Amino acid sequence: MTRHFLSTLDWSRAEIEALLADASELKATRRAVRRNDLAGKSVALVFFNPSLRTRSSFEIGVFEMGGHAVVLEPGKGAWPIEYRDGVVMDGEAEEHVEEVARVLSRYCDLIAVRAFPKFQRWEDDREDAVIQAFAKYATVPVLNMETITHPCQELALALTLRERLGTTDGKKLVVTWTYHPRPLNTAVANSALIIAAKMGFDVTLLCPTPEYVLDARYMDAARTFAKENGRSVTVSHDVDAAYRDAHVVYAKSWGALPYFGRWDEEKPIRDAHKHFIVDERKMALTLEGNGLFSHCLPMRRNVKATDAVVRSPSSLVIDEAENRLHVQKALLRRLIGDAK
Amino acid sequence: MTRHFLSTLDWSRAEIEALLADASELKATRRAVRRNDLAGKSVALVFFNPSLRTRSSFEIGVFEMGGHAVVLEPGKGAWPIEYRDGVVMDGEAEEHVEEVARVLSRYCDLIAVRAFPKFQRWEDDREDAVIQAFAKYATVPVLNMETITHPCQELALALTLRERLGTTDGKKLVVTWTYHPRPLNTAVANSALIIAAKMGFDVTLLCPTPEYVLDARYMDAARTFAKENGRSVTVSHDVDAAYRDAHVVYAKSWGALPYFGRWDEEKPIRDAHKHFIVDERKMALTLEGNGLFSHCLPMRRNVKATDAVVRSPSSLVIDEAENRLHVQKALLRRLIGDAK
Amino acid sequence: MTRHFLSTLDWSRAEIEALLADASELKATRRAVRRNDLAGKSVALVFFNPSLRTRSSFEIGVFEMGGHAVVLEPGKGAWPIEYRDGVVMDGEAEEHVEEVARVLSRYCDLIAVRAFPKFQRWEDDREDAVIQAFAKYATVPVLNMETITHPCQELALALTLRERLGTTDGKKLVVTWTYHPRPLNTAVANSALIIAAKMGFDVTLLCPTPEYVLDARYMDAARTFAKENGRSVTVSHDVDAAYRDAHVVYAKSWGALPYFGRWDEEKPIRDAHKHFIVDERKMALTLEGNGLFSHCLPMRRNVKATDAVVRSPSSLVIDEAENRLHVQKALLRRLIGDAK
Repeated sequence: MTRHFLSTLDWSRAEIEALLADASELKATRRAVRRNDLAGKSVALVFFNPSLRTRSSFEIGVFEMGGHAVVLEPGKGAWPIEYRDGVVMDGEAEEHVEEVARVLSRYCDLIAVRAFPKFQRWEDDREDAVIQAFAKYATVPVLNMETITHPCQELALALTLRERLGTTDGKKLVVTWTYHPRPLNTAVANSALIIAAKMGFDVTLLCPTPEYVLDARYMDAARTFAKENGRSVTVSHDVDAAYRDAHVVYAKSWGALPYFGRWDEEKPIRDAHKHFIVDERKMALTLEGNGLFSHCLPMRRNVKATDAVVRSPSSLVIDEAENRLHVQKALLRRLIGDAK
Repeated sequence: MTRHFLSTLDWSRAEIEALLADASELKATRRAVRRNDLAGKSVALVFFNPSLRTRSSFEIGVFEMGGHAVVLEPGKGAWPIEYRDGVVMDGEAEEHVEEVARVLSRYCDLIAVRAFPKFQRWEDDREDAVIQAFAKYATVPVLNMETITHPCQELALALTLRERLGTTDGKKLVVTWTYHPRPLNTAVANSALIIAAKMGFDVTLLCPTPEYVLDARYMDAARTFAKENGRSVTVSHDVDAAYRDAHVVYAKSWGALPYFGRWDEEKPIRDAHKHFIVDERKMALTLEGNGLFSHCLPMRRNVKATDAVVRSPSSLVIDEAENRLHVQKALLRRLIGDAK
Repeated sequence: MTRHFLSTLDWSRAEIEALLADASELKATRRAVRRNDLAGKSVALVFFNPSLRTRSSFEIGVFEMGGHAVVLEPGKGAWPIEYRDGVVMDGEAEEHVEEVARVLSRYCDLIAVRAFPKFQRWEDDREDAVIQAFAKYATVPVLNMETITHPCQELALALTLRERLGTTDGKKLVVTWTYHPRPLNTAVANSALIIAAKMGFDVTLLCPTPEYVLDARYMDAARTFAKENGRSVTVSHDVDAAYRDAHVVYAKSWGALPYFGRWDEEKPIRDAHKHFIVDERKMALTLEGNGLFSHCLPMRRNVKATDAVVRSPSSLVIDEAENRLHVQKALLRRLIGDAK
């Protein structure tokens, strides 16, 4: 049966560690060794939402292993798509995902999909219908380039932390909510939570109110992983306590799930917590005042973190972004490489 | 003189058969043999309209033979273009097709163009002005990726039918109109008609009223081809009679030519013929209840054909889409391959 | 320190001549020699504005030397970007150019940028803030694909003139303003002026009124280059005198700098000078009635130059566009080629 990469939830810690080791090797030898693992192979990158690093790192990663990436943007350069089964398609959609996935499976060796939530009803969005439909109908591996989790970002974060911390077990990582003018996807927060727990961190989820706690699917998974590692997952609304003695502060903004589709009601809460910004004072509370900081990109400067934090030697932002390239190459090799 | 691929009208049956044979060979050896026919060569894919399969299959096909495809979208990522000769260009267009075609001819080895009709005046659209202008000024081959015909789809259909039927001569193929909420291009219908006639089928064109008969250029060509093969082209408005004993049902929606630019007047006629949908009852009328079904993609499910028909073992939809890749590779090899 | 290609102002004539010689060699051997100078290397093409030739010629040039070009369109397929330092990013921009440039520097070997002026305040636009910000933060070479100058077009023009004229020293080149319905960028005019002066031409800048004279930065640079070559730069508003005995007429439209942001006031002046169009009568005034004509593309026919001029044997338009490919390949080889 085709192995997809839809979420890290069903990839074991040992499998993740193997990917990270392979990514390290690919990174170390990148300029010295020309690779051919994907020679003659093609990958479809299907973007329903914008991208800069994801597109660049996948295109370049595929190229560096001898393959070719095709970028498709349904609804822009390509046709709008229907996901539901059995529908009379007399609306906007010109074709069904079944045809799209089955045909791309004939052309390509892997289909990577970016499909953000619609932000109307979390009950719907949490089904992850678009990528699940691709996975249902595709006959080649389907890879998640961010939907309601962002597993490639997880691998990049994990590799970066491994590089800087060595062992991650028993260290303290804080996932902190930060302000953003718009309610954002919980994907990266979900992902940071579960990968940190899987990697053996003691994880603190810092957020303004209980309403900002993440979906139970990810909270529960994180707690399960933590338990397997003999660690814990803690929710906190106390900024200073959360930062205290942390090895790592990982920042991200997201919209509160209970307000899905009623964002006007959530706005005053978000607006009242602009002080959650990651700044020098808070970072001074971390372990020996020397904790690491990271954030996926894009990131609004001086809204989510101050310039000084972003540019400090403790900032992993650029390394984490670079590591997208290496972990994705390892992942592609694992899924469709000749040596798999 | 440069050989273009603007339409199959001026490609003989023998030439088409040779392309199909080559495509079969490329398909059979795709994963086993790395090809180099287009090594160092570039192809421009100029899209005035959206695309998913066309773009993917061309990009991948070119890559699989060692070349590179550049995707250009004039009016989106590129400048709007003027096609008429001698015009004072003080409107929207920033450049003339003469410059576009001549410059791309210096950069690339082939120019492929998708340019749908404007749906205002059929007298204008039937001139196929955009691709004809490219062909006039280009000094490299110009290839039609769908304008008022869709010759690459024709080749894909022909290969698929050859694979499933073996000999096609004397078998019955029905091109059936189906409902679609908008009036669509006649391109694929024109193409299905002429390639089926060229391949020796007895062809029935099934449509709601005489107003849905296709342009005389294609009706006449189909009749000529049929005559050369000792076969016939029949127009029918009787659904059951048309389906009866058919080997192949090919579905497509299109707008009636006499209503061009007055689509509001055509709408009631279209709306009154939603029952032209391809369904199990109708397919049961085909030869031994076992006729093949196909449709180019995109295709609206349960509008043009029911889920059951699309998913049945007699459905060629996915195979036909896959075969785009193989026939286009054969075509590129024929037009610009080193071994031509 | 990383060598960028932001403008030809800081590239010596000897360096330019070396690039042209290399471009000639690449052009002559293009079809005979497969190159590998960029094997395994990637280039980011960042387009804030549309492009046809620039995109095609860079993509193909990179491919022909074994590399891969990634096309990014911030604000379309990618995130909007902030350029100013120290800003609280609570507006439209989702990320800062520092992160973009630093991350792309990890993925790619070179970043090429197209960023047109905003046409509100020339004092702002003349700072060339976007590409300067990329150059400030990138750790790989940054290359100008047109901002407020168009140095790749300069190299293409220079190569084309070298091909047709041999030595360029002491010959007369007229940069003539022409009408266009909209006020355009001065980039190509600035570029034509400075490269012509650098190549040893006597340069005449022909424009409707003193208000159309170019920015002092480029006027002064051109005068300095001309002086180094023992030549002159002349401003003229007399069409016939400017054309008389010219070896080369280079046409371009641009908006008058004093009217920046108040384009309604400039419009009547532009509209009153439609007769600046390059036509047969004016070209007959050139040296032996045989002067060369060129214009970068896109170009509006019968607005900037008549069909007869554009299509005449003296027209360099297509050659200049072709030469973009060759000079850019030479430039990429110089900046990031293995043999540099």
